[in-house]
Amino acid sequence: MEFLTDEKLLIVGAAGMIGSNMAQTAMMMHLTPNICLYDPYAPALEGVAEELYHCAFEGVNLTYTSDLKEAFTGAKYIVSSGGAARKAGMTREDLLKGNAKIAEDFGKNVREYCPDVKHIVVIFNPADITGLITLLYSGLKPNQVTTLAALDSTRLQHELVKALNVPASEIVNCRTYGGHGEQMAVFASTTLVNGKPLTEVIGTEALPENAWNELKQRVIQGGKHIIDLRGRSSFQSPAYISIEMIAAAMGGKPFTWPAGCYVNNDKFQHIMMAMETTIDKNGVSYKMVNGTAKEKAELEESYKHLCTLRDEVIEMGVLPPIDKWHDLNHNID
Amino acid sequence: MEFLTDEKLLIVGAAGMIGSNMAQTAMMMHLTPNICLYDPYAPALEGVAEELYHCAFEGVNLTYTSDLKEAFTGAKYIVSSGGAARKAGMTREDLLKGNAKIAEDFGKNVREYCPDVKHIVVIFNPADITGLITLLYSGLKPNQVTTLAALDSTRLQHELVKALNVPASEIVNCRTYGGHGEQMAVFASTTLVNGKPLTEVIGTEALPENAWNELKQRVIQGGKHIIDLRGRSSFQSPAYISIEMIAAAMGGKPFTWPAGCYVNNDKFQHIMMAMETTIDKNGVSYKMVNGTAKEKAELEESYKHLCTLRDEVIEMGVLPPIDKWHDLNHNID
Repeated sequence: MEFLTDEKLLIVGAAGMIGSNMAQTAMMMHLTPNICLYDPYAPALEGVAEELYHCAFEGVNLTYTSDLKEAFTGAKYIVSSGGAARKAGMTREDLLKGNAKIAEDFGKNVREYCPDVKHIVVIFNPADITGLITLLYSGLKPNQVTTLAALDSTRLQHELVKALNVPASEIVNCRTYGGHGEQMAVFASTTLVNGKPLTEVIGTEALPENAWNELKQRVIQGGKHIIDLRGRSSFQSPAYISIEMIAAAMGGKPFTWPAGCYVNNDKFQHIMMAMETTIDKNGVSYKMVNGTAKEKAELEESYKHLCTLRDEVIEMGVLPPIDKWHDLNHNID
Repeated sequence: MEFLTDEKLLIVGAAGMIGSNMAQTAMMMHLTPNICLYDPYAPALEGVAEELYHCAFEGVNLTYTSDLKEAFTGAKYIVSSGGAARKAGMTREDLLKGNAKIAEDFGKNVREYCPDVKHIVVIFNPADITGLITLLYSGLKPNQVTTLAALDSTRLQHELVKALNVPASEIVNCRTYGGHGEQMAVFASTTLVNGKPLTEVIGTEALPENAWNELKQRVIQGGKHIIDLRGRSSFQSPAYISIEMIAAAMGGKPFTWPAGCYVNNDKFQHIMMAMETTIDKNGVSYKMVNGTAKEKAELEESYKHLCTLRDEVIEMGVLPPIDKWHDLNHNID
């Protein structure tokens, strides 16, 4: 059996629906023989591990533990879905505060037990914020931490497939940048449908303006739609895509859907958000995309929204003020 | 993207936990670009399909439908997890009757819409009985229908890994035959642990007789144990293993864990049960295994239990008496 690497992959939150799917996906994709599952909830974690042992994957060394030190020590790649879910009676702020704290602890564990980790993918909500907190507390370099952001783009692609009745392969460079859901910025000018910019399709009979606006709303509500249909949050797509991201960092097929990454340039400062990115064995790199004036304004809007959220976390005291970030992580300017 | 085949794979019961995992597994294993998901419960089915579209698998033609005719027409390979779950207040007999009827309809649909199907894997409980009913009503040949039976063997292997502290790769030919759970027959004499028959390990300090009996009980209770730990029935292992079975029938890596298959020889008559099998592109073939007298007696016991269950289904009127089976399916002697 060939593997991409023999280095240790740690899956955090492995007892959950997303984490357990990640574990199965990683084993099926032959990423590495050394997979460790971590979750604080030991019984369900054991149940997941047992299920995977019963699959009888050959040549793998699957371990599981609820001991943080044991889990993180020696990990070279980590995917974390280990946040809390929003519960009845919780405000959005409660959830933000809870997950921000989980991300802080996660970053600190990385710094303490596996400072030589090569890449981390963070997917618990709000991922741009939890990823940013993880980056700062872990002490890693910006190219070593990414967040799951591709689902808005893949959902947009699938909505276009349905609306225009063209195969997915004919919808090229379908991308949303910035934040998620309401805050995402769709770059239709750089998306090609049958070789034609999507901007030239919008407003025609094939896709009238109002149909396009409704389509965008469906993308924004994509996660909620899955809950309505299945009676549970989406778990297969976030699990599969985040494992594709870590596979790329291990030297597998480069991942070219947008990923959330740390950005600090003349346009956007001290933020983690979805950009035009590539993940490969050098980690994540991004480039700026030249959209229309309207698209750029939308991205600016999205960036500002993320800044507000970031500042809220600073206000909470989970993150220090920006001018102290370098003290916390010397890899951040 | 290379696929094992381009023929249509149908997944029946795709809206459930097992079926949706099967669909993702089949896509990840690149079995075929033509995958169709069927489930009578349309909203959840759409939710599963949407999740898989959002994974953005390349080069696949994933379709879904709650229309039986559309689903079955042209299918060359089918995996069905499409039974009912046992609900509160239902007796075992209610469940048997319900799933027997579902299997009858399933077989009839195959006969009507896709008589040229090449292989079917049936996994809904009791699989040996639902598989037998499917075989009879579909009109297929015995080598074309198999049932999921490997989990008892993989669970036994994993329990031995834990008890003896040896890697899974050193536990060779670990097998249970006959029925499932309480009725399974463990062939310890043909299992090798570090090159030594398991029968020679049982009763030694490494595995005292009472520890072996407790271990067997854990295997028998393996499914229940997953429910206790995870709070839900096992779904990842049955999904993954059944897709490995259909992959083998498509010409992938031969499947050599035990599968349930139709047996009618001088020892066992008119029954479907787990045997020493190989699934490859010629379908399933089995051979008789020579165990100890005690092992053979256990298998005989297991066979008798399955006969009782089969006769119960005949009694219910779902299956005709054995002497009429040939009229129902000319491929059955």
